[in-house]
Amino acid sequence: MREVAVIGVGQSVFGKFPNRSAASLGGEAVSTALKDSGIHPKDIQVAYAARSYDANCTAQAVLKEVGIGALEMVNVENACAGGATAFRGVWKEIADGHYDIGIAIGVESMTTSPIAGKLIPPEKDDLEGYLGMTMPAMFGMVARRQMAESGATVEDFARVSVKNHHHGSLNPQAMFRKEFTIEEVLNSRMICDPITQLMCCPTTDGAAAVILCSMDVARKYTTSPIKVIASTLMTGNYGYLQKDICKSSVGTKTAKMAYEMAGCEPKDINLVEMHDAFANEEVLRYEDLMLCEPGRGIELLRSGATSIGGKVPVNPSGGLLSLGHPLSASGVRTVCEVVLHLRGKAGARQTPNARVGLAHMLGGLVTGLEHGVTASIHILAR
Amino acid sequence: MREVAVIGVGQSVFGKFPNRSAASLGGEAVSTALKDSGIHPKDIQVAYAARSYDANCTAQAVLKEVGIGALEMVNVENACAGGATAFRGVWKEIADGHYDIGIAIGVESMTTSPIAGKLIPPEKDDLEGYLGMTMPAMFGMVARRQMAESGATVEDFARVSVKNHHHGSLNPQAMFRKEFTIEEVLNSRMICDPITQLMCCPTTDGAAAVILCSMDVARKYTTSPIKVIASTLMTGNYGYLQKDICKSSVGTKTAKMAYEMAGCEPKDINLVEMHDAFANEEVLRYEDLMLCEPGRGIELLRSGATSIGGKVPVNPSGGLLSLGHPLSASGVRTVCEVVLHLRGKAGARQTPNARVGLAHMLGGLVTGLEHGVTASIHILAR
Repeated sequence: MREVAVIGVGQSVFGKFPNRSAASLGGEAVSTALKDSGIHPKDIQVAYAARSYDANCTAQAVLKEVGIGALEMVNVENACAGGATAFRGVWKEIADGHYDIGIAIGVESMTTSPIAGKLIPPEKDDLEGYLGMTMPAMFGMVARRQMAESGATVEDFARVSVKNHHHGSLNPQAMFRKEFTIEEVLNSRMICDPITQLMCCPTTDGAAAVILCSMDVARKYTTSPIKVIASTLMTGNYGYLQKDICKSSVGTKTAKMAYEMAGCEPKDINLVEMHDAFANEEVLRYEDLMLCEPGRGIELLRSGATSIGGKVPVNPSGGLLSLGHPLSASGVRTVCEVVLHLRGKAGARQTPNARVGLAHMLGGLVTGLEHGVTASIHILAR
Repeated sequence: MREVAVIGVGQSVFGKFPNRSAASLGGEAVSTALKDSGIHPKDIQVAYAARSYDANCTAQAVLKEVGIGALEMVNVENACAGGATAFRGVWKEIADGHYDIGIAIGVESMTTSPIAGKLIPPEKDDLEGYLGMTMPAMFGMVARRQMAESGATVEDFARVSVKNHHHGSLNPQAMFRKEFTIEEVLNSRMICDPITQLMCCPTTDGAAAVILCSMDVARKYTTSPIKVIASTLMTGNYGYLQKDICKSSVGTKTAKMAYEMAGCEPKDINLVEMHDAFANEEVLRYEDLMLCEPGRGIELLRSGATSIGGKVPVNPSGGLLSLGHPLSASGVRTVCEVVLHLRGKAGARQTPNARVGLAHMLGGLVTGLEHGVTASIHILAR
């Protein structure tokens, strides 16, 4: 397999845009990524696009906005991991030598969707749906279990939200550029005990795009390409086979595969962008990614290691909690953020001397207690 | 790239099943394909699943039905070409050596969908949508143009429907196992002049699955594996760049690429399964696939060459018109039909001595006059 580089990244604004189409948001991200890369639109040979809600030929609709046609287009969906699936798709196309230059797009217009953000009625035979196993219900149960097992407190969960909102306040593209105190997080509306509103990611519209190419091509456009050194995507087993709801066996497995592929260890990672759909979730992911020993995520959080300025900043962008979570956009957006840090261009939220960064995403709605049943990890390096 | 074989095919029943979920239909197809292949469910290493409407982790939901987890799952969408995109995805995974055994699934439950079959309101900025450019409107315009240009008559279009309904009457899995006369087709309800109801494919629920593997693995399970000798997928340029609405430049381009990859010519093809969403469309596709000279599709139809018993039967399954068209299932189902003929197991509709078959699919809703903007062709051989 060939080495693959990222040579362009772009994001739309993130927020609530009831008057903008998904195609328009996607087009904004693609235009920015093209400009960033320096390549001509006609040089794109393959496109993968992810959208979760109301998807209908996403790549075709987005690329029409910028006048790109006559190439292979694949639209993917994998819940919150959709964007990561698109990125991996383009990575494989180039690594395997099918094409030299491709674009991965993630986009979501949740505000204009008749489905997103509403309580989706269960499909026939969807037992977990009938039992009321919505995302907040699931993470509320997990939070209670974390508190019972690891000594976590609701203040700890609030601390994750405070941290990520602080990070987001430094990011011009974040949906919320506002800091909150622990008290404000705890006193916000109760969603699913002990999860309060400010511990939940918002409903967001937005898009992100990344241009990938072979290393040969990359060297024509830049002297410092960002390399993709690991790509993994794996769906786990089903919820009721899961013994411990605080552990994600597929998350750990995917992380081990990624570290092995990258030839590095968790201690080598300088920053992480990850799926923090609910504040308490971030702590569990520290453990999946082996940033700390099992059961010690809360200690890592309390130590400040995962804040900007700490040993391994997690979600310096503001994460899903502050930047916003347009589902299928997030898995591409996390790659954009990691690339900015590796280039030294992340502004006020820059991780100093970042050499290796990890973009993580989880997705899955149909599988109950194995929260985040599809895991994807990409490791990038300069 | 490695040689890839098909070792298992399976279809659910096709029809209207308001009491069955997409997952249940998909599970039926997967179980049948597994049984057909002889492999153990746990041997599947990668899954691609396509669904157009209400998609939400399709592969995860379908494979849960049959207890398959812990593998890479990718969900794709490409309108009617979604199933073909899934098949190509698995083909690439195996051809490129990422995995040895994989499954491609296509499924659609249009009856239970709150969206499918209804007039979908245009998205913001969707100019063609606001102009009323629905599928029947598009194919009605194309039909009138065909009549003006090539001497086609409405009776010719009815003849396609009569042919495919005759084929479907021989297929136990068809939605409609009923023959119609030219008069009955012409006298059915007018949908969009000159397209009558019996010239339109129905709204259908159904699923199909295909198991692919490396040739090494295939030889362990069968002495006569069916080889995939060409795979192409390409999205064309946009409608308003199209000079002639009766020609699909992307259709022809994809066909040329496929014949070159397969190392064969149109005259070597023994049967074709193709996208006949509207009766008049089938005639245009004869020309895209170079089964005849440009503009001579009507002659080919009238000659009987594309009927069962003719030189190159087209849609011996009954096609979308008679078998039914569960959008994303169709691109996998066409492969199933071709495989049955190559194995000599297609029953009353068998193509004698079939050695090479072609599965074609087109998809695209957002791009106006370039009807069928995403084209995919797979050529299989015994």
